[in-house]
Amino acid sequence: MNKKIILINNPAIEMVQGFHSNGIASGIKKNGNHDLGVVFFDKECDGFGMFTTNKVKAAPVLVSKKHIKNKIRALFVNSGNANSCTGESGFNDAINICKEIGESFNIPYTSVIPMSTGVIGQRLPTTVIKNGIIKISKIINEPNDNQFVKAIMTTDTKMKIYGVKVKTENYEYSVIGCAKGSGMIHPNMATMLGFIFSDAVISKSMANKAFRSSIDKSFNSITVDGDTSTNDSVFLFNSNCANNKPITSSNADYKLYEEAVQMVASQLARKIVEDGEGATKLVEVEVKGAKNIKQAKQAAFSVATSSLVKTAFYGEDANWGRIVCAIGYSGIPCKPENIKLYFDNLLLFKNGEPTTFNEADASKILKKTEFKVTVDLGIGNKSWTVWTTDLTNEYIRINANYRS
Amino acid sequence: MNKKIILINNPAIEMVQGFHSNGIASGIKKNGNHDLGVVFFDKECDGFGMFTTNKVKAAPVLVSKKHIKNKIRALFVNSGNANSCTGESGFNDAINICKEIGESFNIPYTSVIPMSTGVIGQRLPTTVIKNGIIKISKIINEPNDNQFVKAIMTTDTKMKIYGVKVKTENYEYSVIGCAKGSGMIHPNMATMLGFIFSDAVISKSMANKAFRSSIDKSFNSITVDGDTSTNDSVFLFNSNCANNKPITSSNADYKLYEEAVQMVASQLARKIVEDGEGATKLVEVEVKGAKNIKQAKQAAFSVATSSLVKTAFYGEDANWGRIVCAIGYSGIPCKPENIKLYFDNLLLFKNGEPTTFNEADASKILKKTEFKVTVDLGIGNKSWTVWTTDLTNEYIRINANYRS
Repeated sequence: MNKKIILINNPAIEMVQGFHSNGIASGIKKNGNHDLGVVFFDKECDGFGMFTTNKVKAAPVLVSKKHIKNKIRALFVNSGNANSCTGESGFNDAINICKEIGESFNIPYTSVIPMSTGVIGQRLPTTVIKNGIIKISKIINEPNDNQFVKAIMTTDTKMKIYGVKVKTENYEYSVIGCAKGSGMIHPNMATMLGFIFSDAVISKSMANKAFRSSIDKSFNSITVDGDTSTNDSVFLFNSNCANNKPITSSNADYKLYEEAVQMVASQLARKIVEDGEGATKLVEVEVKGAKNIKQAKQAAFSVATSSLVKTAFYGEDANWGRIVCAIGYSGIPCKPENIKLYFDNLLLFKNGEPTTFNEADASKILKKTEFKVTVDLGIGNKSWTVWTTDLTNEYIRINANYRS
Repeated sequence: MNKKIILINNPAIEMVQGFHSNGIASGIKKNGNHDLGVVFFDKECDGFGMFTTNKVKAAPVLVSKKHIKNKIRALFVNSGNANSCTGESGFNDAINICKEIGESFNIPYTSVIPMSTGVIGQRLPTTVIKNGIIKISKIINEPNDNQFVKAIMTTDTKMKIYGVKVKTENYEYSVIGCAKGSGMIHPNMATMLGFIFSDAVISKSMANKAFRSSIDKSFNSITVDGDTSTNDSVFLFNSNCANNKPITSSNADYKLYEEAVQMVASQLARKIVEDGEGATKLVEVEVKGAKNIKQAKQAAFSVATSSLVKTAFYGEDANWGRIVCAIGYSGIPCKPENIKLYFDNLLLFKNGEPTTFNEADASKILKKTEFKVTVDLGIGNKSWTVWTTDLTNEYIRINANYRS
């Protein structure tokens, strides 16, 4: 880690200047868990969003894609209902949420980003949400223990928040983010949401650049079951409240900012994978020695999404064959003779055939809860890393029996 | 079924004029099961092959791709060892098998198609195989109860053979095929092998045309776990021994031949899916109303390979949302407003939202061991059908614990 970037031990969104948040149990979730959260921004912020590539987009995604072009004053999230596949009525519900927020917080409704996650194909309980918004508007400045982060959870077993402080001789600012997991939602979707907040002073174009490159290497490089939901979205909001000299070009200060944002995004992405449904292992898959980034990425995802590979991780067996096979059918040009395959530092495959590796050594690596698979294609110098999980009986149980 | 195409009740490869087969337990498999089979052709046959698109191709695939260009006299298959990822030595082993067959059956070694399926990364036991070939050459004409079909099995729980007789006023010929399944091989690969034999008299180019179109709609339209192995191969062999007028153009006789070959290929493909590892359901996924075949196929495979969709089938719950979602991220242009989704004849989704379908009706369909999912994209008139299975705990058990 760069010495100028310092881990915040117990991060909270409020530590970033200009942001206030809270979360409550409004009654959307039948079990009484937290389900409604708001982050209120003291002043107009620049917002950046990356949205699901799924052609079927949930109503809040459609609204957020419009609103993100404006200056942003508030973020709304409800869990328990994704407001997806709800037609025009659902779209109007999302707009009305923005209007409720606008009224309760006295801001333009077009400056509100609405997000929803949970069951799809059901209308939102609008009265419940309206009451929730009024309630939360009264306690938005009260100290709370990351209740917002709690409110965005669905099948997540842990709250996911991570933050760093960037500190130089001349200035100091924070980058803190939270996320909810790609565990499948009761009962329908594998929604992944990420929100990153910063008070750094930075131009819109430079922040956008840092955001896109960071998300590509983090949220866009994880997989639990390969499905892309109708609601997946990641955001960065900048309050520009800190005391640093405005970042307006790709200088050293920019690099520091980008590094900080990427660190937060990567750690949140890792937390999502770690908490993937039924997952017992976090596996880093790096494909290197590729001709270009695109091919490295394609090969890495082919390995990371293979049911056979993921089941083999669960079985804790050194099944190099399934990995070589997944590289082979990934669609990239490659020759088995050039491929080298490692589990951590143990070489298992080269010259088109397995090495005489020691089974016990391989087994020791696979029994760990975190390990790395490296595939060297041997035809270039580009690489890409993807994080994945094992595929377990527990995954099947969660996803087969969700309504029972 | 065309009235001129008659199902053969207890098919055997020997019923096709010009072919003789047998299978034995040679000792490759430690458990003493059948593991070595040969089909011997009385005269030179035209052969057609489609091979795995995996860039990592097993040695026998490399040899077969060469030999298939020649006139063919024999087919060799061993199970229990895939001769894959075995480097140059493995390639030489495959060539030597052809030479052994050539010597024992007194035919050119370049007229032999060798195939292997089973564990990868291990050298073949060449002496065991040599002795097996000598033994089988002595009993190749003896009556046997499809021992060849038994010898090609790996984790298959059932022998897979299917055949039809084409009978008109003027002529009669047979099309009989056998296959082994895409269940994962102990311990490594999901190899799928298919062999179709016919005695129809047909030109090489017309037989090739029928073969390619049939395989595309059958073996290339099934999925168990989305992985493409290093050994997948399907073949058609024509002995030209029957009494029909040679088929040399796309006339009615050709259509009949194509229909017969496709019927055999489709039934074998279905049998493979039905017997997929851990599968409890066979699900037909048809995407229709597409702009073109390519998009229909892409969308159908997106649904059929989704872990979420397949787990939902296992859970027997009417999870239309996961299917709409899989269509949405399939990469084809589509609008949710145009999509209609059916389970058998029950409409679950239209106009961008779920219908008010009766849960009990949906549940009744999902509890069946076979049912159909139809997605109408509503933007064209092309369609494609894919067969898939549910994703079950048993799949995880088989594939996680294969060495324990």
